[in-house]
Amino acid sequence: MPLTPAPLRHVTITSPFWSALQTNSRETTIPAIIHAQKTTGHWTCLTWPPNHPTKPHPFWDSDIYKVTEAACYTLMTHPNPALLEEVESAVDMIRAAQHADGYINSYYTVRGLTSRWTNVRDLHELYCIGHLIEACVAYETLTRSGRLLVPVMKAVRHVASVFGTEDGKKRGYPGHQEIEIGLLRLFELTGDESLLQLAEYFLLERGKRDENGETYFDREAKARGGDPYDGMGPEMRPTYEVPRDYAYHQAHQPLVEQTEIKGHAVRAVYHLTAATDYARLTGDERVRAAVERLWRDTVDTKMYVTGGLGAMRQWEGFGPRYFLGDAEAGNGCYAETCATFGLINWCQRMLRVSLDGEVGDVMETALYNGFLGAVGLDGKSFYYENPLTTATGTPKERSTWFEVACCPPNVGKLLGSLGGLVFSTGEEGEVVVHLWIAGEFRVPGQEETVVEVKTEMPWDGKVEVAVRGEKGVRLALRIPGWAREGYTCAVAGELRDGYLHLPVVENATVELNFPMEPRKVYANPKTGKDEVAIMMGPLVYCVEDVDNEGVDVDYVALVDGPVVKGQSKAIATMRNVVPLRAKAKVLENRQWGGLYGSSPWRWSEGTVELVLVPYFLRMNRGGKGGMRVWNRRAD
Amino acid sequence: MPLTPAPLRHVTITSPFWSALQTNSRETTIPAIIHAQKTTGHWTCLTWPPNHPTKPHPFWDSDIYKVTEAACYTLMTHPNPALLEEVESAVDMIRAAQHADGYINSYYTVRGLTSRWTNVRDLHELYCIGHLIEACVAYETLTRSGRLLVPVMKAVRHVASVFGTEDGKKRGYPGHQEIEIGLLRLFELTGDESLLQLAEYFLLERGKRDENGETYFDREAKARGGDPYDGMGPEMRPTYEVPRDYAYHQAHQPLVEQTEIKGHAVRAVYHLTAATDYARLTGDERVRAAVERLWRDTVDTKMYVTGGLGAMRQWEGFGPRYFLGDAEAGNGCYAETCATFGLINWCQRMLRVSLDGEVGDVMETALYNGFLGAVGLDGKSFYYENPLTTATGTPKERSTWFEVACCPPNVGKLLGSLGGLVFSTGEEGEVVVHLWIAGEFRVPGQEETVVEVKTEMPWDGKVEVAVRGEKGVRLALRIPGWAREGYTCAVAGELRDGYLHLPVVENATVELNFPMEPRKVYANPKTGKDEVAIMMGPLVYCVEDVDNEGVDVDYVALVDGPVVKGQSKAIATMRNVVPLRAKAKVLENRQWGGLYGSSPWRWSEGTVELVLVPYFLRMNRGGKGGMRVWNRRAD
Repeated sequence: MPLTPAPLRHVTITSPFWSALQTNSRETTIPAIIHAQKTTGHWTCLTWPPNHPTKPHPFWDSDIYKVTEAACYTLMTHPNPALLEEVESAVDMIRAAQHADGYINSYYTVRGLTSRWTNVRDLHELYCIGHLIEACVAYETLTRSGRLLVPVMKAVRHVASVFGTEDGKKRGYPGHQEIEIGLLRLFELTGDESLLQLAEYFLLERGKRDENGETYFDREAKARGGDPYDGMGPEMRPTYEVPRDYAYHQAHQPLVEQTEIKGHAVRAVYHLTAATDYARLTGDERVRAAVERLWRDTVDTKMYVTGGLGAMRQWEGFGPRYFLGDAEAGNGCYAETCATFGLINWCQRMLRVSLDGEVGDVMETALYNGFLGAVGLDGKSFYYENPLTTATGTPKERSTWFEVACCPPNVGKLLGSLGGLVFSTGEEGEVVVHLWIAGEFRVPGQEETVVEVKTEMPWDGKVEVAVRGEKGVRLALRIPGWAREGYTCAVAGELRDGYLHLPVVENATVELNFPMEPRKVYANPKTGKDEVAIMMGPLVYCVEDVDNEGVDVDYVALVDGPVVKGQSKAIATMRNVVPLRAKAKVLENRQWGGLYGSSPWRWSEGTVELVLVPYFLRMNRGGKGGMRVWNRRAD
Repeated sequence: MPLTPAPLRHVTITSPFWSALQTNSRETTIPAIIHAQKTTGHWTCLTWPPNHPTKPHPFWDSDIYKVTEAACYTLMTHPNPALLEEVESAVDMIRAAQHADGYINSYYTVRGLTSRWTNVRDLHELYCIGHLIEACVAYETLTRSGRLLVPVMKAVRHVASVFGTEDGKKRGYPGHQEIEIGLLRLFELTGDESLLQLAEYFLLERGKRDENGETYFDREAKARGGDPYDGMGPEMRPTYEVPRDYAYHQAHQPLVEQTEIKGHAVRAVYHLTAATDYARLTGDERVRAAVERLWRDTVDTKMYVTGGLGAMRQWEGFGPRYFLGDAEAGNGCYAETCATFGLINWCQRMLRVSLDGEVGDVMETALYNGFLGAVGLDGKSFYYENPLTTATGTPKERSTWFEVACCPPNVGKLLGSLGGLVFSTGEEGEVVVHLWIAGEFRVPGQEETVVEVKTEMPWDGKVEVAVRGEKGVRLALRIPGWAREGYTCAVAGELRDGYLHLPVVENATVELNFPMEPRKVYANPKTGKDEVAIMMGPLVYCVEDVDNEGVDVDYVALVDGPVVKGQSKAIATMRNVVPLRAKAKVLENRQWGGLYGSSPWRWSEGTVELVLVPYFLRMNRGGKGGMRVWNRRAD
């Protein structure tokens, strides 16, 4: 049953929780990103002539494309003439920046076109075009003007003239995947088979080795005059695990042979997002099997409880299986915002292949925790890394802008396109609710039919799904893994793979109730973590020092016994937050002279009551920086 | 009270434990290293002419020097004509390889002298000469022939003509410290002040910044045509934390300003070894204060319980304070053999400044654990890294040879010069015993006086110190930290800074007894390690799977209660090993489907008895690889 995400114009998010975040994104984040790009001068990089005094960065172009894409999503539901004008002027700039042959890239325009396409491993030309294509999909969905489609198709034709298996073409593929996603999305929008073919080429060529055991990246390095056996561009140098480590780019072997998710986490999940679409669109069984294998490896061995991905700072990516350090110290926790953003998109693509509650659970976890906490409640401060613990005395503040500015626009993209994660339709008009976010979905093709979800999630587990209009619909409602035991639904249905399938509902309201109670989560012993995390519904909770004055939250141990809900309260601008309370012992002898001693750690006889708050709300109220998701056990 | 290490010829190690290891080193390790160098062709690199087809490695020269040095030490106590001939032929080769101006380096001889001295940061020219100087000290102490002293002094004069603060000289210093150690040792042997001056220049110039905030390494990179802001030689690329990270070389700031030990661990301890000698020889108070500050930082925040140094694999060096991962997974434990070797030497130098029991304790711990386990009982297999735990299923075998061959010759050097760690003399003839290793010391200047230590350490705590001969001596006997409570000595003395000072002993035997009982050691909470390690005397013990059939040693937790000694037994070729026994719970639910679950780890009600063996004996008897020093606590 192929599934189609809800078109954004068909969804209205009504959840106070989420619409406040969306408003923030629309009114603060996106303008802040454009403002930052303008004040740093990056915004105009596409207009720079050859030998411009400021040499542009290899991926500043993509920042323009990403924020344009994000802006288009918000414009679909929230018209805003000033923002639309910003978008149109960006489109003008893009059109003007394109070379006659279709090439577009500010870095090589300034440095000289003769050296273009000589380092696709490091220099992001294909990555940038990928983001341009995604911007095009968003812009054309919004405007249908063709003003971006025409230059983008020209750019794609140029790329296809350079890369491919035919004689005289380069058998290259991007160092950073992204163009594959764009090509497949534009294929779905336009039906142009050449887009599918180019995506197929990139996906299947990647990681192939020639008779000398060399990949395209080796041959390309040699052609540049570099030593392919240790050659790396300057910006890559400190990032490989070992020289010539193409697992960093998931190009150590072809996708269909890979059994372990490796390397740079963002690249890996972008790769798999596209591969999932490709398998769906073509029915390629080997690619689909590879995607499923790597999904299992990710979810079973390499994912933080928050949906964070990538333990290793050095290569911004995956460490060994079960290695999931929680603190940045020692470079054992990275959990980049964009990797979780990519994971959410990958989940959405998986849910277009088939309904699978586990995939929905991962999407929900990643959304509410790893992703959501990356943006401050002010809407204009962001985390690049999302460790699960920070120590007292070293608070980790969000930043307003990044040298590598990928995370902020991804926040805008995701919040702008949230409706497409919440609802989808099946081929026969079945309406699927993936995420329990209050909102309305005007069912495509039967516009008078509206499915409305009412809920106070994530603070309360009561849900109403109302179907109004001329025609009824069948519903498939995701029953979250955490609610699988104890949920109730007023209408009898069939629970299959985590989704409850109901018969046709017509002008009626279905009531569901999910048990919204604190629960304890434990980690596989292979992680080495004999600790406990607290969750409620989709939310991972953390202990933060601002709520626990007088307790050194770096050195507490939760005792056996219930965790209870506290009185709901506001945290910064977020209303109705439900804090939790748990009993803990504190370490009595935490002051040591040196490193080693003859007395064991001594936990208090008595207990203190700790307050826990959702992880995504961390570090919005100052404090000394003590924060932890995983807690020692004193039981 | 300046102290002088015992001349090697004056010491005979009689300890069966240590003399067996020394014999192994002499008869197996050193010949195996020379053999490996010859069969790989590295041995002759010094003889290669310009444009030789095999381009030599930047530091193969040092391997020749190091093994020559090690051979000279053994020849001082164990004459061996065949080995002496090997040494003399190496000296011939070195003499022939020297250029007319004193320069000597096979790498640049082959690649062309015009580019010499253009990359002292990465290319080890000064490092190699440093090892040559140390070889010279050993060779001239052995032979007094001057055959190496003459070319070495010529090489030093060449270096001094290139580097220094005078106009026209380069203000450089080595990327890898070592020459400073050699220069100061040769100064002490010869009294030639120019050696002290050159060492002083290197030690004090290091890390200085010019008016642009640049170090010599930046200026040198610029002069090479490299970009100093991210330029790194190919072999350095994956090793820096950040581009231009001269903390890697301890050159981020001058030594006298440093407050934290950082970067590559071997370089750091070599640096501090030389700095300690420098402070002793010159009385420089700022250098001495820096050494003491960095000693405290090392010992209080960055040293493994085994004396291992360097948690981070990426730069083979120190991580953040208190970050001491035990497993190689995630690159959070490196503990390179040579770093511990360097630490032992640093300790010896500290003990020449003043007697300090803490320094003796660190030296002893490092020697018996971090260092000793690096060599297999076969004498010809070696560890480069020394993690404190390995997981079942991933055994870590010792290797016979390394691409970077620094560790094996350092094993030979240390075991050959062990006598100089065990005994020293004070200015007024006081004899100091630093390590409780059975042996005889013929007191220099009063050759008829012999101090003999009899003991079965590390297996038994009974010790006899006999003084024989014409004249009595005052004794200063180190009372190990682990024996400070409960030791006995038949003669009353004054315990000062961990050393027991006795009145003159003449033709008499002093009996001491150290409590040789298992003890539990715990880690500072800042390490995050609420675990327990078992030690007895100087030995750190580990749980290894070969002794514990049927128990998954990856998942055990020691219960409160006594650890007891087992029946002594042989482990491989090591006789009289005392194993320990401790009770532990085992994890009952260690098989999990995925990463997270709702049931906590469940420890068994009953207990099993675990066998522990000394850490240095690990992985000498096969097994599946399960090994751990730190154990969870089930108490």
